[in-house]
Parts: sequence; C-alpha cells; structure tokens
Amino acid sequence: MAEIYFDNSSTTRVCREAAEAVMETMTENYGNPSSLHRKGFLAEQTMRGARENVASLLAVQPEEVYFTSGGTESNNLALFGAARARKKRGKRIVTTAIEHPSVLNVMKRLEQEGFEVVYLKPDKEGRIAPEQIFEAVTPQTILVSIMKVNNELGSVLPVEAAAEAIARAKAPALLHVDAVQAFGKLALRPERAGADLMSMSGHKIHGPKGVGALYVRRGVHLEPLTFGGGQEKDVRPGTESVPLIAGLGAAVAALPDPASELPRMRALNGLLRAGLAEIPGVAVNSPADGLPYILNFSAGSVRAETMLHFLSDKGIYVSSGSACSKGRESYVLRAAGLPHERIASSLRLSFSRFNTADEAQSFLAALKEGLAVLSIRG
Amino acid sequence: MAEIYFDNSSTTRVCREAAEAVMETMTENYGNPSSLHRKGFLAEQTMRGARENVASLLAVQPEEVYFTSGGTESNNLALFGAARARKKRGKRIVTTAIEHPSVLNVMKRLEQEGFEVVYLKPDKEGRIAPEQIFEAVTPQTILVSIMKVNNELGSVLPVEAAAEAIARAKAPALLHVDAVQAFGKLALRPERAGADLMSMSGHKIHGPKGVGALYVRRGVHLEPLTFGGGQEKDVRPGTESVPLIAGLGAAVAALPDPASELPRMRALNGLLRAGLAEIPGVAVNSPADGLPYILNFSAGSVRAETMLHFLSDKGIYVSSGSACSKGRESYVLRAAGLPHERIASSLRLSFSRFNTADEAQSFLAALKEGLAVLSIRG
Repeated sequence: MAEIYFDNSSTTRVCREAAEAVMETMTENYGNPSSLHRKGFLAEQTMRGARENVASLLAVQPEEVYFTSGGTESNNLALFGAARARKKRGKRIVTTAIEHPSVLNVMKRLEQEGFEVVYLKPDKEGRIAPEQIFEAVTPQTILVSIMKVNNELGSVLPVEAAAEAIARAKAPALLHVDAVQAFGKLALRPERAGADLMSMSGHKIHGPKGVGALYVRRGVHLEPLTFGGGQEKDVRPGTESVPLIAGLGAAVAALPDPASELPRMRALNGLLRAGLAEIPGVAVNSPADGLPYILNFSAGSVRAETMLHFLSDKGIYVSSGSACSKGRESYVLRAAGLPHERIASSLRLSFSRFNTADEAQSFLAALKEGLAVLSIRG
Repeated sequence: MAEIYFDNSSTTRVCREAAEAVMETMTENYGNPSSLHRKGFLAEQTMRGARENVASLLAVQPEEVYFTSGGTESNNLALFGAARARKKRGKRIVTTAIEHPSVLNVMKRLEQEGFEVVYLKPDKEGRIAPEQIFEAVTPQTILVSIMKVNNELGSVLPVEAAAEAIARAKAPALLHVDAVQAFGKLALRPERAGADLMSMSGHKIHGPKGVGALYVRRGVHLEPLTFGGGQEKDVRPGTESVPLIAGLGAAVAALPDPASELPRMRALNGLLRAGLAEIPGVAVNSPADGLPYILNFSAGSVRAETMLHFLSDKGIYVSSGSACSKGRESYVLRAAGLPHERIASSLRLSFSRFNTADEAQSFLAALKEGLAVLSIRG
C-alpha cells in the first residue's frame, strides 16, 4: 500500500537533489571550511553556494545569512540575541500567543530576565489584526516577534503591519519574523517586509533536519548564544555542518516558484475542504485565506490521537496539533477560543509539492471509514 | 594521484556505514520523532539506537546522552549550563590554557559574568601535571573543565586527577571533560574518570559534521542555552537531526577497538617520527606519550602555511595548528612556551584508521622535497 504523507509541516522527506548534495559533501567534499588546504577551500566554496541560494530566495545579501542547526536555534539566537543586546534601550517585547514553542518559551525566559512581554490574542481562525499590533507597539518596545504563518492553522500574520507599527511608534525595536512555515512557500522579502531578523528551517522544505538559517539585516548586532572558533562571524560558532548546509542549498534550489505552486496547493486544499464539508460533524479550523499548505479540522466526536493512529495503520500520516506539542492539547486552538471537544478532535493536514489529488481522495475515504468505525466505538 | 588526508583532527571523511545511515533516514525513515504516527515512532527508534551506541561506548546509561549540533555546542551547553546553575555556590572555575576555543571563549564570557577562571599552563609538550590541578582546585571551585586530549599536540591530560582534586578539596565542583579528540580513540569511561559532563563530536570519528553529544551524569542539572518544544528533555530542544544522529550512531558502531587500533596508530606515528628525525632542522613538538593520532612538528625555516600549500598542491592535506585557528599563531604552542620560529613553522598531522604506512612514506618524501624547494626560496 502506498503511503500518504500529509504531515509536511512537521517534517518532510529529503528531496533527491538535497540528499545527493549531503552525500557528496559527506564522502567526497568532506573538508573543514576552516582548513587552509584545498579540501578546506572546496568545502568553503560549497557553503558559499548554499548561502547564495538562500540569500537569492530572500533577495538579501549572502553576508546576511547565517546557518544554524534549525528553526529552534534560529529563533533562540534571534530573540535572546536581540533582546539582550537592546536591554538598555527598553524592556517591552510584543509577540503573539500562537507563536511556536521555540519563541514562546524564550519569551518566558526573557520575562524572568526582566523583560515585559505582550502576547497578542488571535481570532477564532488564528489571525492577528494589524490594529492589535499598532496598539501594542509603544516607543518603549525593543523587539517585535511575529510568525509569518502559524504552524497549526496556516493563518498568515500581518508582518508588514509590525514594521509599520515600529516606524509609527518611533520604537527602537527590531522585528523578528519566524518564517519557518512560510519559507519556500510564500515569496519572502525580509527587506521589503521590514524584518531585521528572519528564521528558517531546512527540514520543512525537503531539506535535511538539523540545519536552518537566520537572516540578520546588515548592521544589526546580536549577542551570540555560544562561543567558539569564530565560524559564521562569531554569531554561530562551531564547525559548519557542510553536508546539511549543502543539502539546504540544494533543497532551496529545487523549490518550485510559489507563483506556480500556490495555485496547485489551493486546488488540493480546496478539494479536501469540499470533501470535508460533506462529512457530518467535521468542522474546518483553518482560515479560508490561510496558507493552503496547512488544513486543520476537527473530526467530530473522535479524539485526534485515536483517528491519527487509525490513519497511521493505513499508512496515512497526519498530525494532531503540531509535532512539537506531542499529544498535549493545542495552545494555539485554545488561544483561538475553540471549545474543548473541537480541540480534542483536531487534526492537521500539511502538504508539500509531492502530494496529489489522488492522495486527497484516498485520505477522505479513509477518514470517512475511520469516523464510521471509531464513532461507534466511542 | 591518490590524495593523502592527514588532517583527521580537523574533520574526517564520513565512513560508508555512517553515510548510508544518513541517507536512509533522509529519504525513507524521515519522520519527526515527536510525531505520534508510525513514521514518528520509527524515527524515534532510530534515535534510540544511536543513543544506545554512544552510551555503550562510554559505558553509561542512554538517558545520560544528549545529542547536540557538535563539540562546540556540547562545550557551551556544559560550561554555561553548569556555571550558571551553580553560581550561588561559588565563582571559581579551573581550566587549562590549551583548551579548544569553544571552551576558552566561554570562559572569557563567564569572567564577564563574574566568575573567576584559573588557566593552568602546560609544559613544553602540552602536558598538565596532576599537582597543578590539586593546587588550583579549592573548596570554592564550582567547575573544572579539562580536555582529555589536546587537539594540536595530542598530549593526554590527567582528567582523573581533576576528579580526585575535587574530592580532596570537598569542592561543590562539576567536572567537565572535552573529549572531542579522544572520543572513539581512547577507552573513555566518564563514570570511572569521575566526569560529570563529557563533550563529543561526530565528525572527528568519520561521522557527519553537525552532530555531537554531551554526557550529563544522572542527577546533574544544567541550565539550558535554548528553549523550545521539549526535545532532549528540554536540555537541547529543536527537531532532532535524526539523519545525523543515525550517522553518529553508525560511526560509533563502526569504530575499531582502541586496544587493537592504538598499536597500529603508534606504529604509523613511530614511522613518521623516525622519518622526521632524519631530516635536519625538523623538530617534533608532540609528546612521546601523547595520543598517537596526532603528530605536531616544526619544519625548519619554512613557514607552516607555505609548506601546507606546497603539500596541498600535491594532494597531501595537513594542518597548521588547528583548523579553528585559521592561520593565526597557535596559542597552544605559545602557552607551551615554544619560540616564535618554531611555532610559525609548525604543522599538525592527524590520522585515522584509514591512513597507511605507504601514505606516511609518501608524505615524508614530499616534505623533504618541500624543504629543499622552499628553504631556498626564502
């Protein structure tokens, strides 16, 4: 039986191009970029190529791209680095209640360090209104952190409003955008969006797990989290994972143009929405204007984990909430104000360019079967 | 022309077993270990296997092994984590002047945070005497960090004396051992050595770059450096790099027994020492009782970088100092008190199980040629 993988916002299968790049740098081009001999030089060249790929996708300078071990490290480095570097200019930080745990748990820590954090509440579909941001950003605000796309609901947040709010308030604030779920799926232009810092991850775009990037606008100073041998201009030291960086670069190069891919994803998403609308008791939680790669819905009276295991046994892989919340009730859906039963039965489908309409049909059939079998059981 | 890679302490070629494990987890077993479905479960199983491999090599419990992005992160997490968690019990830290930059630069930072750091000076061959440690560790010491093997000279440091010194002084100190250069080459038993924390890296043992491990003795509390989705028991959050972790596990499983490999390395090292002894103007810097995987020597009047490039053009890869010092004069050899000319001409050969006696002979011939050609030039 062919597997159906609808959990691409948790992680993705590494694409052929990226896997080959990883393999080549592990077994042939295996030098240390810091080495002065030819093998070191070749490894450095490989890294430079990957950095250019990422920079080009974002329309920024390669020198503004720093490689990290993933989205969590990018978020930690950006937030701790920015807040600690600016602590003499103010204590106020603005973020949302539906950020990823690698943002929210850093915020909790920053509160312990004396910062004051404002958490904006979303509407029922995970959206934040520009007005909320304008109201929250004051002249004392030193940092605004807002995700581009919410990982559980797919709602798209008004990042540009945050940049405008900072300008209007004349705040000494940096703008950090967690773009992990948007990277490679929406056209991202940190400069145009007014972002000073932007986090990205490799394994959400068919690159390998264990590598990410942080865009740091030229001139922005971050306090590093770690110290060592000077790599990544001392912002992120440690021997670079050249294989994974090469893999990220290749995954970026293999990305389809959002202009052609988004319509395809909208069609897939629409097909599933239409199918779900026909099933009694099923309610869609994702907003209609969200990123079509993510579709969150509640499966009537069947607990999410029960349905997830039923589908998994059929080789269909979906998520209950995000992978990172591992079985706990979704704080995102709670913040969105959904009732308990709706949260407890919520499933997330997340797509990639390798998913097909046939898979969507098979999924709908399996879901119906599951509802029939499991609703009776209780 | 066959290449000769004598720079294995900078980084190594990934071995077949590790490369295959990485490939398999990138393209087939690509789930997120936090996912509740079958693909998540399989990824978690893979991680567990790798953790058991590392634990078994160290004769510790799997629960005491934490995966990181490499040696630098392991050192940072251990040192910041231990010092900040113990800051109310004392301010004194003991280390050596020849630690890796990912230790020394953390120490500089800890000094800024109010800690008092004592740097023990090595002898001319990079050795530290047990007496120096006994003298330095006082009842106020909260942390001792000492490397098992120095990365530039190969000297073996008396880690066990540090544990004894802590016990004798009745100090509330944790013992951290940077074992990056010793891991997989010497039998390491953190428990027997009295180490509370031990840092390891994948890419020095034919595993991939971008993964490492930190042994944390059960019951030892570290303050995390980063915050996120709860992975690695909140000590090191972020989606785990399952491919690299699998690669590390496979690299560990493929390691030869030190009992059989060390004699082979001693023979290779001895062959090169005998050859170097016959070349006028060449002086060995590594101690005779050092780890045989590392052989540091000074090449007469020829600057290290000049010789390094001459050899590189012949496909022979060696290092000047460590890769991490990238062309700067070695602070290790300076701390050892070597004269400037000797430091400026110092080269490091570092071996792995894939090196042969034939390569050693070819290297000696190339070195002689280089000395003849380059000494005349200047």
